[in-house]
Amino acid sequence: MNDATRTSTNPPVLPMPDLRDSFPGPFPASAHADDIERHATQWLRTFPLIRSERALSALTHITGQGVARTFPTAGRDELFLCADLFLWLTAFDDAHGEATGAADPARLLRTTSEYVHLLAGHHEPPGGPSVFGAALRDLLDRYGERATPAQYARLTAHLRDNLFGILWEAHHLHRPDRVTLPDYRAMRPHTVFVRTVVATAEVMLGYELTEPDRSSEPVRELETAVADLAGWINDLASYAKETARDGSATLGLPALLMRRHECDLEEAFRRASRMCEQQAAVAAARIAELTAGGGSLADHAHALRSVASSYVWHIDDSRYRT
Amino acid sequence: MNDATRTSTNPPVLPMPDLRDSFPGPFPASAHADDIERHATQWLRTFPLIRSERALSALTHITGQGVARTFPTAGRDELFLCADLFLWLTAFDDAHGEATGAADPARLLRTTSEYVHLLAGHHEPPGGPSVFGAALRDLLDRYGERATPAQYARLTAHLRDNLFGILWEAHHLHRPDRVTLPDYRAMRPHTVFVRTVVATAEVMLGYELTEPDRSSEPVRELETAVADLAGWINDLASYAKETARDGSATLGLPALLMRRHECDLEEAFRRASRMCEQQAAVAAARIAELTAGGGSLADHAHALRSVASSYVWHIDDSRYRT
Repeated sequence: MNDATRTSTNPPVLPMPDLRDSFPGPFPASAHADDIERHATQWLRTFPLIRSERALSALTHITGQGVARTFPTAGRDELFLCADLFLWLTAFDDAHGEATGAADPARLLRTTSEYVHLLAGHHEPPGGPSVFGAALRDLLDRYGERATPAQYARLTAHLRDNLFGILWEAHHLHRPDRVTLPDYRAMRPHTVFVRTVVATAEVMLGYELTEPDRSSEPVRELETAVADLAGWINDLASYAKETARDGSATLGLPALLMRRHECDLEEAFRRASRMCEQQAAVAAARIAELTAGGGSLADHAHALRSVASSYVWHIDDSRYRT
Repeated sequence: MNDATRTSTNPPVLPMPDLRDSFPGPFPASAHADDIERHATQWLRTFPLIRSERALSALTHITGQGVARTFPTAGRDELFLCADLFLWLTAFDDAHGEATGAADPARLLRTTSEYVHLLAGHHEPPGGPSVFGAALRDLLDRYGERATPAQYARLTAHLRDNLFGILWEAHHLHRPDRVTLPDYRAMRPHTVFVRTVVATAEVMLGYELTEPDRSSEPVRELETAVADLAGWINDLASYAKETARDGSATLGLPALLMRRHECDLEEAFRRASRMCEQQAAVAAARIAELTAGGGSLADHAHALRSVASSYVWHIDDSRYRT
């Protein structure tokens, strides 16, 4: 707890990854950034997923600006959809996951079952309609209008994985010692929503990977590197805030590395930073390789570069300052 | 408990649904039935998911004979694959779900996370490989060889729903009073695996529904009626056995109806039987309507008829006798 307290009052002492070689920035942003922010605010008036005006304003700001960097060349309506999807996941995690979910996991399961029902293709919620359910229906309808059957099925599958990740986290918040590094590596991409964002790229940007390309080694390695990087830098950036709030940073990479290597927080941040830099270098090399060939593989590599860039960009946002 | 005890010693006194009008039987069976049973036994030697020889023998028998009725016209290799898939789900539920899962839900989450990882497209388990993980990889590889990308994505999505259903059940086994009838209706198709079996039909029988047909009202109503019917008749057939074993029948339809209507077990069975008969009639009417038109809609209706028939058939099997 001493380490945590020290961190929350003086975060700059901890070593952070230097990603400038791999993702140099400045990161291009869509001209629609402010429109996305305005739209997102309006969407959250239609579907009031967030009660606090202050939280709503902070979240629509980072989401609007972030999504504008995730897919800088996407159309306006696609950007709106991507932003709303990300807002839904973040708002659900904030409202029902984390400490609330950990306090009553069975209740979280029941809440989640409504969304599993909608994701499985039913149009009506099993019980009374909820605000989160209505918002999810809106998202699925809008996505369904733009996606092929396979793209739609893949998105709903990834959303199930996000819900599973939130459940997993709620079950381990108070028993982080039961979580191994391989457990964490498998689950972290789902709790940071990065694979879901990647799954939307084809619809956002209008390309389609062939199945052999999708399952090829370069694409798999690139996606894994970006997924790891997104979760890990998020852990480092949010460590102080999460620790100060509800102790959920105990499930993050620094805490895991401290336990595994019996080291202090600074050493854990140093190790984590090196891990981030390594995955960033792997991702950058695969992006260079794939963009050189052109075609839909190059489109996908460009998408992965901007997705990674938006995660790199957003850890500097005020949402993560204590 | 008196009711339960009485039931387990003398089940025939309880009213059961009469489904002969809707699903008259005898139900056609594939000529490969015995081959499936032999293959399933062999597959469970390669992937030892079941320790007890007696349980293995009972399960391969009902699965072999059941799958031969689920898709009586399917090819031999497709039947083997369908049987193995059903075995995997049943064996996992028996080994890790139910009482074991309820005793340590967080552990069940960690166990499940390996399969979520594989379903999300990763080839290697996050930690050490498990027998269930290796068996799932085998299933996914074999399914992937036969399915279109959308069919593959739909199957893996339904498998996630099955895992979620098992988690849901484990969380409510000891607190069934928190489960409402709408909760139950939404989850029961996932715990009886029926939508997953339906999802395999296109691959088993070599047809493909168009998206407008898939989301049309007749198809949706037919699939819902068959899904309800499968779960409900399973609850009625297994009530005595489940109650005698670990009390998990408290999550089934008879217990829910007793609580909701403050009635005794016999009245609950009478109500449940009527519900089953009604859904069977809805399903039969939609099947008649859709088969009349020919094409892939008729193929799908035929598939739903044989899927429903196999659930109707299998509740008489000895697995459900106490």
